[in-house]
Amino acid sequence: MPLIDTDVHESFSGVRDLVPYLPEPYKSWIDGGGWRGFSQPFCYTTPGRGNRADVQNPDGSASVSDYGVMRAQLLDYHHHDYAVLTGYFYPTALKLQYGLASAMAAAYNDYVAEHWLAKDKRFLGSIQINARDPEAAAREIDRMASHPQIKQVMLAVVDDIAYGHPMYRPIFAAAERNNLSVAFHHTVFAQGPYGMGLHYMERHCLIPIALMPQVISLIVNGVFDSFPNLRFMILEGGFSWLPHVMWRLDREFRQGRVEVPWIKKLPSQHCRERLRLSTQPTEDITPDQWGKLIDLMGTDELLVFSTDYPHFDFDNPNVAIPRALSDDTREKIFWKNAAKFYELDIPASAVPSKAAE
Amino acid sequence: MPLIDTDVHESFSGVRDLVPYLPEPYKSWIDGGGWRGFSQPFCYTTPGRGNRADVQNPDGSASVSDYGVMRAQLLDYHHHDYAVLTGYFYPTALKLQYGLASAMAAAYNDYVAEHWLAKDKRFLGSIQINARDPEAAAREIDRMASHPQIKQVMLAVVDDIAYGHPMYRPIFAAAERNNLSVAFHHTVFAQGPYGMGLHYMERHCLIPIALMPQVISLIVNGVFDSFPNLRFMILEGGFSWLPHVMWRLDREFRQGRVEVPWIKKLPSQHCRERLRLSTQPTEDITPDQWGKLIDLMGTDELLVFSTDYPHFDFDNPNVAIPRALSDDTREKIFWKNAAKFYELDIPASAVPSKAAE
Repeated sequence: MPLIDTDVHESFSGVRDLVPYLPEPYKSWIDGGGWRGFSQPFCYTTPGRGNRADVQNPDGSASVSDYGVMRAQLLDYHHHDYAVLTGYFYPTALKLQYGLASAMAAAYNDYVAEHWLAKDKRFLGSIQINARDPEAAAREIDRMASHPQIKQVMLAVVDDIAYGHPMYRPIFAAAERNNLSVAFHHTVFAQGPYGMGLHYMERHCLIPIALMPQVISLIVNGVFDSFPNLRFMILEGGFSWLPHVMWRLDREFRQGRVEVPWIKKLPSQHCRERLRLSTQPTEDITPDQWGKLIDLMGTDELLVFSTDYPHFDFDNPNVAIPRALSDDTREKIFWKNAAKFYELDIPASAVPSKAAE
Repeated sequence: MPLIDTDVHESFSGVRDLVPYLPEPYKSWIDGGGWRGFSQPFCYTTPGRGNRADVQNPDGSASVSDYGVMRAQLLDYHHHDYAVLTGYFYPTALKLQYGLASAMAAAYNDYVAEHWLAKDKRFLGSIQINARDPEAAAREIDRMASHPQIKQVMLAVVDDIAYGHPMYRPIFAAAERNNLSVAFHHTVFAQGPYGMGLHYMERHCLIPIALMPQVISLIVNGVFDSFPNLRFMILEGGFSWLPHVMWRLDREFRQGRVEVPWIKKLPSQHCRERLRLSTQPTEDITPDQWGKLIDLMGTDELLVFSTDYPHFDFDNPNVAIPRALSDDTREKIFWKNAAKFYELDIPASAVPSKAAE
């Protein structure tokens, strides 16, 4: 069966890798060690320090992902047709110096194009932006959109931005005019209503709590209606909460639609038509529960497979999606839904499968 | 069929009603108009200004609930066996002057005992506390717990408290030693990770987003394990998200339990044994979806019926829970689950039903 992996994290060794791509004065700031990148002001104990234990550089040094290692462990090992690179460095998290943040976004995009996208045609790319300067972000989207492997704009989920606010409309407009989707992925700064979780387990359970309000914000504030051709992807944010969010939106819309006349469709219909969610981390549920959950979503066309390579909670495509689901549903999750969403050619590997029928 | 309504909001005309119950110097502060109660710094358009349109005082004045009106519209009209009063004034939301906040909590409890609980044996009560001073809150719980109609401690969900933090343990200890449950209900200050919703529809969809992290916080930080006899109630916070939260907690626990050795049971087992959720606002789902959702919860013993009277989004017991559910499940939702949770005598009205079998 073909495989499209919608959440794969490329990496770099640090912000100094971006120096060749930065203009002055930022080049000198970073080259001079003026800022060494994001760090957390607390100590979370993450299994494997965040990565799979076997993800190491060829020289055995600190486990950041390397193209050669990734190709061997992921793309070739699991026979990927496509892997969507979703980022490692999210400039929106940089709250100060918007000029620096926007320059870092552009530098990172150029870095990824040269060091990752150019190395393997199976890679698809995401445009990193500094969403805190929406007009600058729109220019960066326009600059990068012509790259043939670029498929989406990454909207980083941080602690203080709900993307439905009208100030972010230039970003959505740029994505739509370039026929790109928008994807949401948490950063280390994503949190719940009461801040960071007090332990890593809590913090990790709060990631979906940080993503659900993005869907609510987009729907309530009319982003789905204002950009009728735009598609939305929730990455690594869980998916079993979707029935609740759709049902709740529908009830609130029924009783309060006078307040939001710009919403032209039942929110659940908007979601089913244009929202997709990646599967990793899959939860500990039985095939029967998978089936009921998909049924409650109203369609099996909303989920797209992801591994979250190279992270410790990697979902192995051989076991993450139960074989007891129908072949049709599994094909949709593993590649058809993503192929449709990203408007990809049917993977070549699908052809023998078709011919064998 | 008997009916236990687990979320009914008593009311008062304003903080001046509490003056007779306040000690000095707070009595003079409030009597002198020094503070007129909570208000929102924004304009949400709520249907019916928040209440059912037919909820008015006998003189036609502003629609705050009145015992006589409530008895006629709710208790007698729907043949309630019990109605759990869950509050209108949540002193935890008062962030400053902890002495005033704790005094207001005690005054409000005395006000409710005299003006509501004493008037109708069908009322069950909640102890309001100022959770920001946990030791004072524990004393207030000990003071009120002997009232025969008091069944639980109310933990108000505000914008900045996740109750799993160890600083709140005195509250849970007081509830447990008095054989009271703890209930969570949002206040007007509850919010999502990115603040208040930009419209009322968004704000209302964020209420479950404010409640889910409370369950996560309690489980991860060991409250269920530290207080093995304590029972937990989520009021008006939605319920269709529970499968997601239980499954996510289970997965995170499986992969990260080394960090949280105090958790002695699978989180989903903890939830099924000791967490209950009220049904209002029910979502717009079919009987078949209700059935699948309950199946995904793993048991039909987690939901307890509520109307949220007198609010505009009142759930009518005649239509809110589909008749297509089994009689056994409906009996559990309408009264049996709540009777067990609150250790209530079987309602007298259940006897004829039994005799008729």
